[in-house]
Amino acid sequence: MPRFNPLVETLAAPPIPSVFAWGRAYDGRSGPMIDLSQAVPGYPPHPRMLELLGECAASRAFTGYGPIEGEDGLRTAYAEHMSAVYGAPLAAGNVHVTAGCNQAFISAAMAVAGAGDMVLMTDPYYFNQETTLAMLGVRTRFAPCDPDNGFLPDVSALADAITPDVRAVALVSPNNPTGAVYPPALLAAVYELCESRGIWLILDETYRDFLPEGAGRSHDLFTRAGWQDTLIGLYSFSKSFCIPGHRLGAITAGERVVEQVAKIMDNVQICPPRSAQAAVAAALPLLADWREENRREIARRAETLRATMAGVPGWRVGAVGAYFAFIGHPFEGASSAHVAEKLAKEAGVLCLPGSYFGPRQEGYLRFAFANADQATIALLRERLSGFSLAP
Amino acid sequence: MPRFNPLVETLAAPPIPSVFAWGRAYDGRSGPMIDLSQAVPGYPPHPRMLELLGECAASRAFTGYGPIEGEDGLRTAYAEHMSAVYGAPLAAGNVHVTAGCNQAFISAAMAVAGAGDMVLMTDPYYFNQETTLAMLGVRTRFAPCDPDNGFLPDVSALADAITPDVRAVALVSPNNPTGAVYPPALLAAVYELCESRGIWLILDETYRDFLPEGAGRSHDLFTRAGWQDTLIGLYSFSKSFCIPGHRLGAITAGERVVEQVAKIMDNVQICPPRSAQAAVAAALPLLADWREENRREIARRAETLRATMAGVPGWRVGAVGAYFAFIGHPFEGASSAHVAEKLAKEAGVLCLPGSYFGPRQEGYLRFAFANADQATIALLRERLSGFSLAP
Ligand SMILES: Cc1ncc(COP(=O)(O)O)c(C=O)c1O
Ligand SMILES: Cc1ncc(COP(=O)(O)O)c(C=O)c1O
Repeated sequence: MPRFNPLVETLAAPPIPSVFAWGRAYDGRSGPMIDLSQAVPGYPPHPRMLELLGECAASRAFTGYGPIEGEDGLRTAYAEHMSAVYGAPLAAGNVHVTAGCNQAFISAAMAVAGAGDMVLMTDPYYFNQETTLAMLGVRTRFAPCDPDNGFLPDVSALADAITPDVRAVALVSPNNPTGAVYPPALLAAVYELCESRGIWLILDETYRDFLPEGAGRSHDLFTRAGWQDTLIGLYSFSKSFCIPGHRLGAITAGERVVEQVAKIMDNVQICPPRSAQAAVAAALPLLADWREENRREIARRAETLRATMAGVPGWRVGAVGAYFAFIGHPFEGASSAHVAEKLAKEAGVLCLPGSYFGPRQEGYLRFAFANADQATIALLRERLSGFSLAP
Repeated sequence: MPRFNPLVETLAAPPIPSVFAWGRAYDGRSGPMIDLSQAVPGYPPHPRMLELLGECAASRAFTGYGPIEGEDGLRTAYAEHMSAVYGAPLAAGNVHVTAGCNQAFISAAMAVAGAGDMVLMTDPYYFNQETTLAMLGVRTRFAPCDPDNGFLPDVSALADAITPDVRAVALVSPNNPTGAVYPPALLAAVYELCESRGIWLILDETYRDFLPEGAGRSHDLFTRAGWQDTLIGLYSFSKSFCIPGHRLGAITAGERVVEQVAKIMDNVQICPPRSAQAAVAAALPLLADWREENRREIARRAETLRATMAGVPGWRVGAVGAYFAFIGHPFEGASSAHVAEKLAKEAGVLCLPGSYFGPRQEGYLRFAFANADQATIALLRERLSGFSLAP
């Protein structure tokens, strides 16, 4: 058999399907499965969203090829939304629609870094960002996030890690996996660091709409003069609109970045799926109240999770935030994959092992708590208290 | 401003939008624009296709994340279809659904080649394959296709070009841009060459359903023992179903290839857009007769084009086939982009310059004749006969 690309061949298999396999092996002994694995809101999309998706998909208007950068309607609607959220003058030309935020990341990364270049990330990291860079031959260096500092990255550690081969710093806030919401001052400091060192800041804000303190401005970076020469913002419509199956995300960046990304996206997929873009363009203003209700609901779930975990001896909340909690398990020395697998198969709690997000995270599990309602989250008390690693 | 990835920065801007700009500059002086530029069937999708797309998109069933490799339903339906077309025992596990065939190509290419590796292509080539490899840092070498041999590649020239750094040969049949349909014996010879040299054959059959001699088996490669270790087949649902805006294509390959591609696709987009997959799974058997009618219609259009061009002094048909014709223009020494631009702006005929498909193709223009009906194609006689490069 001819060779595969070793950068791809040595990549681990995608983690989520293997976790689902643990879930399927659960026999129900502790009650219904509590699925806190993949980040998928437990509530359905708004009925109007489904109607719009259906109407647009049935229309001949969206069957042909569309603009590479996305439908004008969605680029304009999203630019208006972003302008309102950030109090910044963002225009359609600052938006490149993508088929989800993973695709936004790979195209942003390719625009600024090639094989042999270096990108700085945090540890823990969102695994798809790490595997994306690895398969492109882009090298990665990790700034550790101190659990005692709420898993926030340390700006001076980032500064020390910027060697001449570093092309970008990639951050995720609100964070996946920890849930940590990076304070505006921290984001400002990293932005200024990148600006002064002449490298890009790629900021993934997939969970921006779930900020516990209230949706809205989480930083002022888009209002800064010359932000186009430093900042590349990433977003996903998957979570906020509950439509990951329709694959939509967006890049917000300077026009010169958008131009580079368009060259990449022409090769990757010619244009994003069109009818869903038209549907989301209409839904973006229409469903603002619904998104705000969901944000409040998820904030209540976070509170329930905190209260629940306080009643589980030995387990610690490492961080909890917009969508995820990073939970310290009590089994010192055990691998997090072993703990997560047993937890799925015996306690019916499906979550991701910390090690999926970095080799130093064996003591943790990621709970996508926003997937479950408050009553379900409360069940964790019994499930976790009764759980032991002993065979 | 920080640096961009030079492999991306030096890439030319996507060609199609600039051609559309020439079309917009046409003042109508010669009659309605005849658009033979992008390959988009001129007839609409089947009404049942639109209904299915609408129904599936309105369903909650497809809003969550789906399997990376594609919906089971579409993988199974497409494997059955392929098995029937090729008389080969293909299973769902041999299929990886992608968001279009450009994405099928980039993921197949990444699976087998990384920066610094070499891929063999033909000259002329489909431009997105060339830019895809260029932006990945994959080197390319081109086997010339002799116009006097119907633009078919020469197997011994390919054989000579296989140095140890070559990982794959990439072919397109029916060809874009020339339209040439590679005979089964030629495909078999290239396959055997790749097999014996231990490299992959990536075969893009986007236009397979438009074979003039009748849809169906265009080669026997999928029936050969061990084909999984040589062949990677690519396909697009865009053209046959008239739904490029919904972004669907497929890779047909061995399970080990599918496994590598899945790792890439998880990073590129997690899963293909789901509701359109469900719709196409249903449409694939339902619309077989409709696709066959379209194939016949396009074969008639090819005949009309031949007859029409025979009446235009100085112009030559380099090749004509399943969807495209590669037309030699009479303006020796002129750049094909100059000819195409003037043709668009003055004669209202929109087509692609040969140079977009390789530097040696300045004498040619690509006509996507299948876009236009027979009456429209017949108009080319007057438009081209009356056209001159003189200002
Ligand atoms: C931080 C982060 N970025 C990107 C994504 C990908 O989202 P999408 O569905 O838009 O591709 C996810 C999904 O879990 C995520 O957590
Ligand atoms: C040879 C070839 N491959 C792939 C594609 C891309 O098609 P899709 O719309 O499926 O991405 C095209 C489109 O023109 C093509 O001509």
